[in-house]
Amino acid sequence: MAVNLTEKRADELLEIDGIRLFTGRAGIKQQNRDDLTLMVLGGGHTVGAVFTQNRFCAAPVHIAKSHLFDQDGVCALVVNTGNANAGTGAQGRLDAIKVCAAAAEQVGCQSNQVMPFSTGVILEPLPVDKIVAALPQVRPAFWSDAARAIMTTDTVPKAASRQGLVGEKHTVRATGIAKGSGMIHPNMATMLSFIATDAKVSQPILQLMTQEIADESFNTITVDGDTSTNDSFVIMATGRCGQSEIDNTADPRYAQLKALLGSLALELAQAIVRDGEGATKFITVEVQNAKTREEARKVAYAVAHSPLVKTAFFASDPNLGRLLAAVGYAGIEDLDVDALKMWLDDVLVAENGGRAESYTEEAGQAVMNRPEITVRIDLQRGDTVAVVYTCDLSHEYVSINADYRS
Amino acid sequence: MAVNLTEKRADELLEIDGIRLFTGRAGIKQQNRDDLTLMVLGGGHTVGAVFTQNRFCAAPVHIAKSHLFDQDGVCALVVNTGNANAGTGAQGRLDAIKVCAAAAEQVGCQSNQVMPFSTGVILEPLPVDKIVAALPQVRPAFWSDAARAIMTTDTVPKAASRQGLVGEKHTVRATGIAKGSGMIHPNMATMLSFIATDAKVSQPILQLMTQEIADESFNTITVDGDTSTNDSFVIMATGRCGQSEIDNTADPRYAQLKALLGSLALELAQAIVRDGEGATKFITVEVQNAKTREEARKVAYAVAHSPLVKTAFFASDPNLGRLLAAVGYAGIEDLDVDALKMWLDDVLVAENGGRAESYTEEAGQAVMNRPEITVRIDLQRGDTVAVVYTCDLSHEYVSINADYRS
Repeated sequence: MAVNLTEKRADELLEIDGIRLFTGRAGIKQQNRDDLTLMVLGGGHTVGAVFTQNRFCAAPVHIAKSHLFDQDGVCALVVNTGNANAGTGAQGRLDAIKVCAAAAEQVGCQSNQVMPFSTGVILEPLPVDKIVAALPQVRPAFWSDAARAIMTTDTVPKAASRQGLVGEKHTVRATGIAKGSGMIHPNMATMLSFIATDAKVSQPILQLMTQEIADESFNTITVDGDTSTNDSFVIMATGRCGQSEIDNTADPRYAQLKALLGSLALELAQAIVRDGEGATKFITVEVQNAKTREEARKVAYAVAHSPLVKTAFFASDPNLGRLLAAVGYAGIEDLDVDALKMWLDDVLVAENGGRAESYTEEAGQAVMNRPEITVRIDLQRGDTVAVVYTCDLSHEYVSINADYRS
Repeated sequence: MAVNLTEKRADELLEIDGIRLFTGRAGIKQQNRDDLTLMVLGGGHTVGAVFTQNRFCAAPVHIAKSHLFDQDGVCALVVNTGNANAGTGAQGRLDAIKVCAAAAEQVGCQSNQVMPFSTGVILEPLPVDKIVAALPQVRPAFWSDAARAIMTTDTVPKAASRQGLVGEKHTVRATGIAKGSGMIHPNMATMLSFIATDAKVSQPILQLMTQEIADESFNTITVDGDTSTNDSFVIMATGRCGQSEIDNTADPRYAQLKALLGSLALELAQAIVRDGEGATKFITVEVQNAKTREEARKVAYAVAHSPLVKTAFFASDPNLGRLLAAVGYAGIEDLDVDALKMWLDDVLVAENGGRAESYTEEAGQAVMNRPEITVRIDLQRGDTVAVVYTCDLSHEYVSINADYRS
């Protein structure tokens, strides 16, 4: 069902010098697929990461955060699917540390140098013995293998690469993978994404760049408005491209690298929406000329989260009233609905507080039949923009989520 | 599909002295059913009303509000289904006034003494000529007829009555009707409800009581989180029961009458959830021991709005993790997840940051199989409570909303 999304072959993704990947089978939920991924960094690297803001954040999130900000530096990442180790209390944190210790022994580092990540069912104890037993069996893997090994309800593995000049002499490469399809919402949802680049960036600057990139990529997507307990986004900079270290934001290479990695992160984030549970349409909601970014986002999310709007897209029904109603309840108290304009792709649908005079049902229907649609809302009260990406709400969404545990 | 909801017969609903009902056929959307309701008040009455807070509030909402607060007093209400007259700009307001004028001529009052109400498709011009032509043809009706005439996607007409002592000598009667099934959310959604009572209450005090009752009934229900452009709740007090006027809140009869009408409004509000689009389960979410009412409501609505929680209820799947994740992202920044407890009916499911030790999958499954379920969440950080009512998210919801306009 994924909207315009296809699997990348191994040879379509750039290898990144300074990071080695391994995948294996712990048999946590399914026996005949890889569900364990190990990423090992080769030294001289830095790591930045952002995590879910859910108060029920999972045990591995607690541990990964703590290890990220330890003095010793991160040497490896270990990811399992099938069990999220969330809502598992103190035992869950002990289990996450056990996984780190097993990975550390294998890699030859300290356990506080390993960041753990888990995704899958919540409130079930992590089968830590299965993971510890499987770790020595992992095999070297391509990015395409890792993209597949971190999947849960995803129907298509998500991966992409970029390369480009950063500074005048050095071509930087980057490859990223992501998983997630439901529960995708700003502030990180059941979403994991890992990007590696051979750029050289100091840790504090990489951490800042990771936050800024997350805000403009993973934090602009929504499938069903739920935010999860485990979501994490990591950028690993191996420093192997030969450039000198980027250690401040005034360095013009900061913006160049951020643009390169940001475009990669946005492609991965959009891939998650394209593979949204039951998605048949990819919807861009762009709110223009708002007073503030917060206000623009409020309106965009009210539209993107409305089950009535989302079912209308599923039905290819130009039910504009539902769109306007969602704008109306977004919480902008002094919104002048007569000043607002709204477009579906290039068709003006609403102005002067109602349907545009030039609008025809045929023109609206022609847009609604498309698999990718942009809703553009001009609030005409400021100069700030926000864009969010979402998908429609289909029968398949209900089926997937009614059956997930069985 | 409605959950434990059946149609009331005409003789199960109390007639209220001082108000006459009429229904008729304007043929706005369907030809072979009544879609027009006229309520005529007999003098000596007062009216209180609350309206949607959607910024795209419909033309009839503008006009009804303006007529309610006019000096001349309200004499009649006219309600059409099939077209909401929303997002129709200045023409929509003119159309609503034309309907008022036609009703006023028939009733023998001024047009600013008529409150208009519309529900149905938005952004389509109101077929005002059909309504004006049909008004002289309306026939006297029972409350059960009116409950049926105001339906849109409702599968069961919603009506209820109450009677009880208010003061020491006077038995007060009240009957109410309501419509609505999707888009139901606090601050009033595609929801219309009209209650008539023979109590005698001054207008300002009735207005206050209407607001207080709405806050504890219609503003505690949610089907899909969308709020509509047209929602309105009206209480008409005919004053015919023989009591002296209640004109201040310190009068002990204020609390008695509010309890009587409040219980009626809550039954009607819950009926809307029971008939939620595609509903197969009626869910009560009770948040206890919060610091503030706002905080309690935030948590209750996060749970009640989560599509993942709602599909789990549809599947009768005790997927507790989704419940906890929703609590976690409700936006209570300093929430101590280890202190929180959660029950499904009488089964303790979560404590100490994870699944309760006493919990068994069998016990959880037994609760989830029931058609009515209470989720109780004890935040253990204050002494404030909030309760909201919702339903599950089923395949049928998607079908209904994907097909609504066709």
